Amino acid sequence: MTVRGWNVLSQQDMESIHEATLTILEKTGVNVGYEPALEAFKKAGARVDGERVYLPRALVEKKVKEAPSEFTLYARNPEKNITIGGDHFITAPGYGAPFVTDWDHKKRTATYADYENFAKLAGASKNLSMTGGVLVEPSDIPDEIRHAKMHYACILYSDKCFMGSSSGAKKAVDSIKMAQILFGPEHSLLEKPALISLINTITPLTLDERQAGGLMEYAKGGQACIVAALSMAGATSPASLAGTLAVQNAEILTGIILAQIVRPGAPVVYGSTSSITEMKYGSLTIGAPETALVTNATAQMAAFYGIPCRAGGGLTDAKCVDAQAGAESMMNLLTASQSGINFVLHAVGILEYYMSMSYEKFIVDDENLGMVLRFRRGIEVNEESLPLEMIHQVGPGGHFLDQEHTFNTFRKEFWKTSIYDRGTYDNWRLSGAPAINEVAHKKCGEILSQYQPPALDSLIDNQLKKFIQNL
Amino acid sequence: MTVRGWNVLSQQDMESIHEATLTILEKTGVNVGYEPALEAFKKAGARVDGERVYLPRALVEKKVKEAPSEFTLYARNPEKNITIGGDHFITAPGYGAPFVTDWDHKKRTATYADYENFAKLAGASKNLSMTGGVLVEPSDIPDEIRHAKMHYACILYSDKCFMGSSSGAKKAVDSIKMAQILFGPEHSLLEKPALISLINTITPLTLDERQAGGLMEYAKGGQACIVAALSMAGATSPASLAGTLAVQNAEILTGIILAQIVRPGAPVVYGSTSSITEMKYGSLTIGAPETALVTNATAQMAAFYGIPCRAGGGLTDAKCVDAQAGAESMMNLLTASQSGINFVLHAVGILEYYMSMSYEKFIVDDENLGMVLRFRRGIEVNEESLPLEMIHQVGPGGHFLDQEHTFNTFRKEFWKTSIYDRGTYDNWRLSGAPAINEVAHKKCGEILSQYQPPALDSLIDNQLKKFIQNL
Repeated sequence: MTVRGWNVLSQQDMESIHEATLTILEKTGVNVGYEPALEAFKKAGARVDGERVYLPRALVEKKVKEAPSEFTLYARNPEKNITIGGDHFITAPGYGAPFVTDWDHKKRTATYADYENFAKLAGASKNLSMTGGVLVEPSDIPDEIRHAKMHYACILYSDKCFMGSSSGAKKAVDSIKMAQILFGPEHSLLEKPALISLINTITPLTLDERQAGGLMEYAKGGQACIVAALSMAGATSPASLAGTLAVQNAEILTGIILAQIVRPGAPVVYGSTSSITEMKYGSLTIGAPETALVTNATAQMAAFYGIPCRAGGGLTDAKCVDAQAGAESMMNLLTASQSGINFVLHAVGILEYYMSMSYEKFIVDDENLGMVLRFRRGIEVNEESLPLEMIHQVGPGGHFLDQEHTFNTFRKEFWKTSIYDRGTYDNWRLSGAPAINEVAHKKCGEILSQYQPPALDSLIDNQLKKFIQNL
Repeated sequence: MTVRGWNVLSQQDMESIHEATLTILEKTGVNVGYEPALEAFKKAGARVDGERVYLPRALVEKKVKEAPSEFTLYARNPEKNITIGGDHFITAPGYGAPFVTDWDHKKRTATYADYENFAKLAGASKNLSMTGGVLVEPSDIPDEIRHAKMHYACILYSDKCFMGSSSGAKKAVDSIKMAQILFGPEHSLLEKPALISLINTITPLTLDERQAGGLMEYAKGGQACIVAALSMAGATSPASLAGTLAVQNAEILTGIILAQIVRPGAPVVYGSTSSITEMKYGSLTIGAPETALVTNATAQMAAFYGIPCRAGGGLTDAKCVDAQAGAESMMNLLTASQSGINFVLHAVGILEYYMSMSYEKFIVDDENLGMVLRFRRGIEVNEESLPLEMIHQVGPGGHFLDQEHTFNTFRKEFWKTSIYDRGTYDNWRLSGAPAINEVAHKKCGEILSQYQPPALDSLIDNQLKKFIQNL
């Protein structure tokens, strides 16, 4: 009798993908559009021809081993420090959406006011480990200071870890400077990193100036990078999922190796949200079961290299917070958790294949995250949880409601809903028969109106404001 | 680096639960409200005191081993035969709901017309393995013939396997007689079983007349039984999930042993949909993460005994087809699949903790089931799926859309949606911005209006009608 389990790749499958990747890196190569990176690769022993970098097998295998299997990020509230790697499951909200889909189903350009709201919601969440990064893209803020204004909102409204900018070398340095202001001059960010940044490859097989620049600055400054691919199988990578895994692996390893060249032991995360192309439209689809499969395989490939992994999230292609959004998001979130993904970006809020954020979706996904966290706690089997004497006393046909054991146990064992409906049909009708997105809408308003951000030292606050003014 | 995987119980945990169960069976015992069962237990070596049956350890361990690890059920269309056990994943629709929640959110008593509709939907589904059993409870049909009328609709509208009645010995015999009519006198149902029936224990630790009677008749006639517990942790079993696992294990094994006493090798399934009590209302909750945990542990305990397992489904406490319904149902269905559950009753259609069936939920869950089935197919890694030469030719910055490999591969690799929306936001708005339950509503109407049931021999049809008339 087999217990199925999660892992879709066998050891042989992983070795085949690894071998294919080595061939791609050695023979096909990767384009890197950033001069300092080309120099670094050359110096480390890669063959460089124009922008094309060819990585010899020995270099790949040597440098990949230098990446740490686990590291800690420091929050301004030390209770909210996070560890990435091992069996840890770190979550952050949706990232990068240019739009917000409102309660009335209308989609509009995201603003800094939205950014601040999502930072507050992330700060208020009991389930999310981090405040996040580009919670939405606030297009009402000029590009030159947008990254800094986003960091400022994260710092102001939450004391959890937040993400650094990935928009090139200069902004990466700004992020580190702001973190240094926050933590004070005594804090060595090199030894105790605070930031993690999302470095996306350009698929297929390309690393551009912006991303390579950011990555090198973070590695230099000891801050962490997620090196992540978003291949669209059938368009920017082969239609076979295995082929997609090989191409994304080549891209991710190139970034990871660059970080290790800059600074051996630089904290990195092996990341992917690769998925398939919806061939009917030639467009990205992230709610697909193939996304979940790639998530699972990504966790396995990261484990193969001994590097922490990122994938998954509350991912959906739905345009509103409906049953499709619920099902696709749960499939991807639960798969990430049970596959051993360490870092889940986009855990909450995403609609429409990363295009839009939704307040209601944020609240619903946060509830789903609570369920997944309960699932992860598992089942405790011990003498106390196998109360044979009580079972004997209650006996056939009896009931356990009035037992002391029940009273002492249920709060620990049972996850408590925040918004999900478990009442009777009649009570639900009496309350207006709300679909859960309506309940989430009200809940969101309550959280935002009641939220008390953690105190921030006014000296630090002023220094941060001044830093932004001088940008 | 760990890849997390699913299994919540360690080998030691399973042995502890097994040992606790043996103590319960030997010391506390189980009430069995059916004289022939008490006699059978006594004859087999159990201590019987009134209705209380005490099972000695040796008897338990001996009889449990006699249950087969896998068996086949025969459908009237041999292409739709199903195997239960191993890595097989058999699915059937919701079972036993007395109500239907309609499109307008109104709940009403289920009718035979609903039953027929759900039988057609099950017949039409490409994803469901079986037509099911009590698709809804058709209260407009007199109790004496209700079971037979339900079987008749299953036979008429689908050529997949269907479930036998579990309402006592007499109706079980009726089910077998109708199956014999369908398969003809030449077919040995004893050697080639056609029916599987749901035998629910009365928790805690009770087997009533109706269920024990049905079980014994099916075992005698060589037909399969799911012996399933539905404990409510904190009410009908201990609030600790481990304690609940031990109590349900005692109940399930009692049924399985009774079947083996009647007929060694009788096909049985180890089943559970145990969950927790929502302490706010003292009521059942099935969308809880604890339900998913029990599903996982149930698969492990069944594997521990080498018996096929049943649990999970598209389980939700939601009152309408919203994001809660989507998320809870997917959590439970995906957990069932990846835990190695072999038989998933309630895979589609359920709302409101088993109280109600929904046409729209049926269609949405069927889509989710399609995703889970794609996930199960995994990732194929071989030379064809690692097309290194094509990757080399396309190279950095190229694209794969116009490659022959893409054209030859994507249909096989990519799951195709039936109702889920992957288009653009603008197109979604143009089509009226429908939530997915609205799309499902239309789809359901199309399926029902276009459905062509498989042909049924008129001689058999007449015999079945006559059989029902004579009941």
